Amino acid sequence: MNISEIPYKIYLEEDEIPKTWYNVRADMKEKPAPLIHPGTKEPLTFEEMQPIFCDELIKQELDDTTRDIPIPEEIQSFYRMYRPSPLIHAEFLERYLDTPAKIFYKFEGSNTSGSHKLNSAIAQAYYAKKQGLKGVTTETGAGQWGTALSMASAFFGIDCKVFMVKVSYEQKPFRREVMRTYGAEVTASPSMDTEVGKRINEENPGTTGSLGCAISEAVEVATKTEGYRYVLGSVLNQVLLHQSVIGIETKTACEKYGIKPDIIIGCAGGGSNLGGLISPFMGEKLRGEADYRLIAVEPASCPSFTRGKFAYDFADLGMVCPMAKMYTLGHGFIPSANHAGGLRYHGMSPVLSQLYHDGLIEAVAVEQTSVFEALTQFARAEGILPAPESGHAIRTAIDEALKCKETGEEKVIIFGLTGTGYFDMKAYEQYNDGKMSDHIPTDEELDKGLSGIPEI
Amino acid sequence: MNISEIPYKIYLEEDEIPKTWYNVRADMKEKPAPLIHPGTKEPLTFEEMQPIFCDELIKQELDDTTRDIPIPEEIQSFYRMYRPSPLIHAEFLERYLDTPAKIFYKFEGSNTSGSHKLNSAIAQAYYAKKQGLKGVTTETGAGQWGTALSMASAFFGIDCKVFMVKVSYEQKPFRREVMRTYGAEVTASPSMDTEVGKRINEENPGTTGSLGCAISEAVEVATKTEGYRYVLGSVLNQVLLHQSVIGIETKTACEKYGIKPDIIIGCAGGGSNLGGLISPFMGEKLRGEADYRLIAVEPASCPSFTRGKFAYDFADLGMVCPMAKMYTLGHGFIPSANHAGGLRYHGMSPVLSQLYHDGLIEAVAVEQTSVFEALTQFARAEGILPAPESGHAIRTAIDEALKCKETGEEKVIIFGLTGTGYFDMKAYEQYNDGKMSDHIPTDEELDKGLSGIPEI
Repeated sequence: MNISEIPYKIYLEEDEIPKTWYNVRADMKEKPAPLIHPGTKEPLTFEEMQPIFCDELIKQELDDTTRDIPIPEEIQSFYRMYRPSPLIHAEFLERYLDTPAKIFYKFEGSNTSGSHKLNSAIAQAYYAKKQGLKGVTTETGAGQWGTALSMASAFFGIDCKVFMVKVSYEQKPFRREVMRTYGAEVTASPSMDTEVGKRINEENPGTTGSLGCAISEAVEVATKTEGYRYVLGSVLNQVLLHQSVIGIETKTACEKYGIKPDIIIGCAGGGSNLGGLISPFMGEKLRGEADYRLIAVEPASCPSFTRGKFAYDFADLGMVCPMAKMYTLGHGFIPSANHAGGLRYHGMSPVLSQLYHDGLIEAVAVEQTSVFEALTQFARAEGILPAPESGHAIRTAIDEALKCKETGEEKVIIFGLTGTGYFDMKAYEQYNDGKMSDHIPTDEELDKGLSGIPEI
Repeated sequence: MNISEIPYKIYLEEDEIPKTWYNVRADMKEKPAPLIHPGTKEPLTFEEMQPIFCDELIKQELDDTTRDIPIPEEIQSFYRMYRPSPLIHAEFLERYLDTPAKIFYKFEGSNTSGSHKLNSAIAQAYYAKKQGLKGVTTETGAGQWGTALSMASAFFGIDCKVFMVKVSYEQKPFRREVMRTYGAEVTASPSMDTEVGKRINEENPGTTGSLGCAISEAVEVATKTEGYRYVLGSVLNQVLLHQSVIGIETKTACEKYGIKPDIIIGCAGGGSNLGGLISPFMGEKLRGEADYRLIAVEPASCPSFTRGKFAYDFADLGMVCPMAKMYTLGHGFIPSANHAGGLRYHGMSPVLSQLYHDGLIEAVAVEQTSVFEALTQFARAEGILPAPESGHAIRTAIDEALKCKETGEEKVIIFGLTGTGYFDMKAYEQYNDGKMSDHIPTDEELDKGLSGIPEI
């Protein structure tokens, strides 16, 4: 098929929404290392995880052999509300860049939560409901995950308690209000409602919070409240599993229209979007059926892949969570205050960490002013106002397309456009006013976090 | 076709995007009254309108006989970025209401401007560019129109100056920032940059502005600046013409899936969304081919149809614009300060005014707390967070669906979901906090505006 015959927006049919999730671990020869107990340093058992997580989600977390896992009917029904998401041929951006490259993006931002996070939120809320639970707790930073979980919880009629990183809570009152509109209870973190919150507040007076800290609070409330469990929007194996719907749809659309990607790009904070987008392509690569360049893009101010250490570390600042083997900047790492948007987690998905360690994916770090330059170019050319997080993938997609302009190569580039930026206009304002700055941590700054990674 | 076989979201194909606009005036026996010159009281000629409007748009404004007007290729190309918009079967809302009614909504909010306004903005920017103009001026209240025009102007590379009602400018800094991201220049109105702005500021110290006032300023700048014209996002015949894409797509989707609407509902401020949605259905009605109940829903705090007067009035507060025959509350009318969102214009589209006068459409007025109740129910059931404006249509759709529940009738209800509420969270917050109030103007309050309508 000639590229000009491909529609601008490729919408699949309703019956092409995936009916199974794809579990990339089944195809990995080197499996991601298991979560371990911080005390015993032994792999966590199903029973040990039960106080924290829903039963069915623990099964998914531990299952590294089943390749295709059926998506329950109720979740499929919810997916129909906003899926299939379109794969868009960025012809206006190509024209603007004057590149021979063919650029496509999978747009996950057209649902109300504004991002791909809803794909896993609805699954986690469903399993909580099915287990007869009363509610779930979680943390949110930029607010996308909290919004997604609020929507999902409202849909299944369960309670939702969100610990929102204090700086976001204050700077993004409208994000908070969306969550409240969906019935969630939103608390600024660190709060004085939890033991760990009190401790962190005492040890760090005036702290504006961090994801690692909010996680500690949410876990504490979940384990201490009857009928509650904790849910997490990224990093975990189960989350990457749910997010595989992004990649499966992308692959289906590619096959339907004869698009053969050379490069697939995604932004990476905890890794849920990137992991979901590349999973089925990675599967082909692992099985030796095809090859792709798969690129993780992270902020230069929070460079887990490119400057972190592959080691067991705590998932949270309060050290109440299990430990995961991952690329990490140390559980005490907090990105500099001028960092805009999400992608601020100190660690990275164990699945992606293993794949990166094995040389199966590449990683680059980009600076935020160059990200906002790309965001603005993209917005004006393609008409969509992206989230800052998504801008990292756009930046690298544009860089690769400009390389093609130099070499004359017609490479096919696909990137993940994870979400919209409607709640990030403060950062856009800074950029529009020429007041945005970059921060690349010095080696000394990074050492503070890295030196806190425990020796195991 | 059985209703269960209809997909949840009906997406048309790219080649089903309309290639012509439908001009409902061609089928009206009683044509809408022409715009007149405020001095001579004579119908405005093409030449008299030239200093204000683009030439091609004047032709469209005056043309009440050509039924189908071709959509230029460049506009069709832009429409592909976000059209066709989906017609969604509100099955989750039906289940929540437990109604036998079948509810569908045409969702125009998934583009970055967040509303249907882009349909006309792109057309108006295109004709300005084609005429070789340097830029356009406009006003914006809630901000949807200004955002749409900023996007459209960025796409065609022309300047865009937006006068934003001062209260919105201050309460919605993020809306303003979206416009700036698309390169627009945004000024709070009334400003001290124009003669009319200065006059209004002097006569009304501390005024927070109004649409009618911002229009006056935008028109002044357009007529005094070389290479500029004024563009308007609602009310005018040309705008309803462009917005007919909403109705044409809706009708195509209905025909494709055998959906026969009984009732079609839209919110009405200046009338662009309602006019666009109902146009092709109205055409059938005017030609005696089919019958539908067509309902305009307006805020009880700004009730142009239900409590206004059908008369010639000024389109703007400053009385620098042409006069239109329309349902009006008087050009001096300003809705009470507690009114949330758009739909705050004192007048109404002359086309819709004539149709309402001739008994071809119905109108209801609803109060805003009941609108926000409907918005919240809808958001939780259907997963989309709507704009307050759209909530008016939702309110009436729910009311009609609940009547069906009483009578057991399986009526088919279609309503227009014009946009998303991401920039209206202040109003949602008021509602969530139980602090939202209603204001139904007393007859005495309305008389102040009505008595200012000139005798012609």
